[in-house]
Amino acid sequence: MNTISSSTIPHHHLPAACSRPGINQLSLIRARQQVVVEPQPPHEKVTSHAARLANSLSNLLHLHLETSLQKNLQYTNWNLLNQGNRTSPTTSPKEDISTKWREIHGSCDWENLMDPLHPWLRREIVKYGEFAQATYDAFDFDSFSEYCGSCRYNRHKLFDKLGLTKNGYMVSKYIYAMSHIDVPSWLERSHLVDTWSKDSNWMGYVAVSNDEESRRIGRRDIVVAWRGTVAPSEWFENIQGKLEPIGDGDVKVEQGFRNIYTSKNESTRYNKSSASEQVMKEVRRLVSLYKQNGEEVSLTITGHSLGGALALLNAYEAAKSLPNLPISVISFGAPRVGNAAFRDELHQMGVKALRVVVKQDIVPKMPGFVLNEGLQKFNEITGTQEWVYTHVGAELKLDVRASPFLKRGGFNLPGVHSLETYLHLADGFLGTDSTFRSDARRDIALVNKGCGMLANELRIPECWYQLDNKGLVRNAYGRWVKPSREPEHIPSPSREASVHASFVEMHGQYKGRQPFLSV
Amino acid sequence: MNTISSSTIPHHHLPAACSRPGINQLSLIRARQQVVVEPQPPHEKVTSHAARLANSLSNLLHLHLETSLQKNLQYTNWNLLNQGNRTSPTTSPKEDISTKWREIHGSCDWENLMDPLHPWLRREIVKYGEFAQATYDAFDFDSFSEYCGSCRYNRHKLFDKLGLTKNGYMVSKYIYAMSHIDVPSWLERSHLVDTWSKDSNWMGYVAVSNDEESRRIGRRDIVVAWRGTVAPSEWFENIQGKLEPIGDGDVKVEQGFRNIYTSKNESTRYNKSSASEQVMKEVRRLVSLYKQNGEEVSLTITGHSLGGALALLNAYEAAKSLPNLPISVISFGAPRVGNAAFRDELHQMGVKALRVVVKQDIVPKMPGFVLNEGLQKFNEITGTQEWVYTHVGAELKLDVRASPFLKRGGFNLPGVHSLETYLHLADGFLGTDSTFRSDARRDIALVNKGCGMLANELRIPECWYQLDNKGLVRNAYGRWVKPSREPEHIPSPSREASVHASFVEMHGQYKGRQPFLSV
Repeated sequence: MNTISSSTIPHHHLPAACSRPGINQLSLIRARQQVVVEPQPPHEKVTSHAARLANSLSNLLHLHLETSLQKNLQYTNWNLLNQGNRTSPTTSPKEDISTKWREIHGSCDWENLMDPLHPWLRREIVKYGEFAQATYDAFDFDSFSEYCGSCRYNRHKLFDKLGLTKNGYMVSKYIYAMSHIDVPSWLERSHLVDTWSKDSNWMGYVAVSNDEESRRIGRRDIVVAWRGTVAPSEWFENIQGKLEPIGDGDVKVEQGFRNIYTSKNESTRYNKSSASEQVMKEVRRLVSLYKQNGEEVSLTITGHSLGGALALLNAYEAAKSLPNLPISVISFGAPRVGNAAFRDELHQMGVKALRVVVKQDIVPKMPGFVLNEGLQKFNEITGTQEWVYTHVGAELKLDVRASPFLKRGGFNLPGVHSLETYLHLADGFLGTDSTFRSDARRDIALVNKGCGMLANELRIPECWYQLDNKGLVRNAYGRWVKPSREPEHIPSPSREASVHASFVEMHGQYKGRQPFLSV
Repeated sequence: MNTISSSTIPHHHLPAACSRPGINQLSLIRARQQVVVEPQPPHEKVTSHAARLANSLSNLLHLHLETSLQKNLQYTNWNLLNQGNRTSPTTSPKEDISTKWREIHGSCDWENLMDPLHPWLRREIVKYGEFAQATYDAFDFDSFSEYCGSCRYNRHKLFDKLGLTKNGYMVSKYIYAMSHIDVPSWLERSHLVDTWSKDSNWMGYVAVSNDEESRRIGRRDIVVAWRGTVAPSEWFENIQGKLEPIGDGDVKVEQGFRNIYTSKNESTRYNKSSASEQVMKEVRRLVSLYKQNGEEVSLTITGHSLGGALALLNAYEAAKSLPNLPISVISFGAPRVGNAAFRDELHQMGVKALRVVVKQDIVPKMPGFVLNEGLQKFNEITGTQEWVYTHVGAELKLDVRASPFLKRGGFNLPGVHSLETYLHLADGFLGTDSTFRSDARRDIALVNKGCGMLANELRIPECWYQLDNKGLVRNAYGRWVKPSREPEHIPSPSREASVHASFVEMHGQYKGRQPFLSV
């Protein structure tokens, strides 16, 4: 591989977690707390509120945050980084896992694979995490762009632009979502009048393993990756924590998540069908296509934060609709989604969920992280669990303090919630009582893409994932202008809705190879 | 000219004024005010302090800031911008001003040239302003770089990298400064241990007009451009406003400014001689060189903010040292520097100063902007002016409200103080009672390089002047790394101190052309 020149590096506006100082941590903390304070000017109120809550939360959640100086660094790892490691591949070896794929996919609830963490499972976790990360990296956050809220690239180019072709998957469909509930700070909106869509955001995609990867992993793997919220604070603040029944007995789920998953409106361009309908139609199509070929097929649904919540709703629906399909969810920093009946139903249907959780992250304790912890015990006694949020599946617990590369002190909620922090910690995780994996290869610099979690000694700037001059370029007259998006990457509802057309298009593009999606 | 590709665009970390929300406005406001408030947690105290002061200051200074909606826009200008103007040159025509250069240079104190503003003078003001802007655009603000505080480019490449060769000057020397007074937030420092310099910052440069430009402007023009502070708030907060005598009768100047201008230390790499000594040695050398050739020579000293203060100190010294040299200062948003005796002395020595001031900018009202306004009247009666700060020279007063492209409401102190805002307003200034110049050509997008002053309708992002991924590049192994600075741009005290060597070097480089510096 050659050095990638700056012009070929994918560029995106990841809204830096640290670019809105105060707000994220603050709102996150306020999310489920109400504390009575003296009337003060708005700014002050918020600040004192936050300061007090940060302190009490730290105790309440037993985060044991070190506020003193950096711990002694593990110099073995540092040396690795500073010397050989900068000239080594960034991925661990690809083993053939075809004989063990069902266990890796969770058939036995990942028992005996999590602690110590099996290297094959670790590699798969990072792979799916990278699929979830792609939904941020390619998202157009530029509110001065008429394409704000869309994906910067068309689905054929997505993985190529992000350097993810190495994973051996290909995107078959984009998913769009809207919400009937006005949840501020969920929908990214353009400042402009004429935009690609006024109601919808790009919310993720469906991808399928190619032949080579399918051979390695022992089956044709369909992946659904759901986008979350990079700065989830305001979002979660606005979740009222209302559970609503979904029609299956006592099963109830959070209405805000469900609304995003199921909303549609005939007058929109991208949500004439809901995210749920879009994704299920595509999954059914692909399952049917490969089963007809006599292939073994699996469904793996991934997402970070809000995306992890949507992944679980998606898994529930898929399990209802496709009863014999092996379905797993690999989520990162996801909040609770439903009540105990929801959990039990998923369990009965055989959905396997692996929740990757950073101990210091607050989002997985939401909604209702204060009240709920107590209530759950109460309800286990009284048996009235139906209204209480409950987590689903197995948990892989990571600890920020396990990595010698991360800052210790402080209370960096956006940083510990960041998916890149999760992937770094997963890559280095050997087991609960082990130190950071010395042969972890994932590029550590990625952690600071949208936060400032890396120790200063590493010299990686905070929130570095940014466009050259925010996308402005100098034209031939010396004027700085915002170039139009290349036509091939402009979203088009007609093109994207037409799966058949795209099927033909892809066969055209990759003719001479078979079957569908084997690149 | 061809479209400049992203790889050839100069990249710099301009520390965005708006990237430190609150702090700038805040500290600026606090600079000369002390208000007794109830003891509160530090953060709260600062916030309430700021809020109250912002209100009272707005009244006190008669800023008449509109906090309501945007005024009606002048659609003539908008159309210009949105249509033809994006495909027009960014500079006004270069007229031959050789017969009028003394008036343009201020020999008659710019009488009858300022209101309405003579187009030849306007063009020169913008030219010198761009020289001052270069000291920001090329400055290395990256605290993770071992070259933090230096210029990103060597002096031979500076104008080329910034697209300023069009002005027809060439840099002959870089100036470095330090301070014996510990003024926080003045000196930019690297986080690293091994750095190019621990004590000094790049503070500006000396440049000379080439033959072609010299013919156009009627003389060989020596320019000194002084770097200021992009975020002057913390800096000015720490100016104690102490006037100190400089040995000439009653003449007194602000000690903080003077300290930066005169500090030196034998143990440093770049300030074995002071900024004053460096610049005067080079100016004397150039004056002597061109006078020997029988050429007419002028000295024009420019700077923004702190740089404008240093420009005045520099002019004072140059006038003492070179009595017959025509000396002008063109300053932008500069604070007061000395007392009335300092002003009178400059006047007597024939130094001409044109102070470009934006009405809404607070910095030109410093130091002592609250007390001083009253005291001055008092002292004019009592005759004890020697301790009171006084402005020097003629004032060109600009008004943010004159431009239809700028935001109206709010109290954006960093934005109104920004040099690019000054240059935009100067480019559009016709006269006190005129609307914005309809044929102003300077690229409006430049205003938002380091602030968010432009109206949203223009779709230019705030603080867009930033490096692709903050300078990180992906190496051949897929790892994100910070590349080393190219050797030719690494500062070297021996190379830079040796003027003779560089003289030879330049003759070598441009051999076949004569005389020195004519490129």
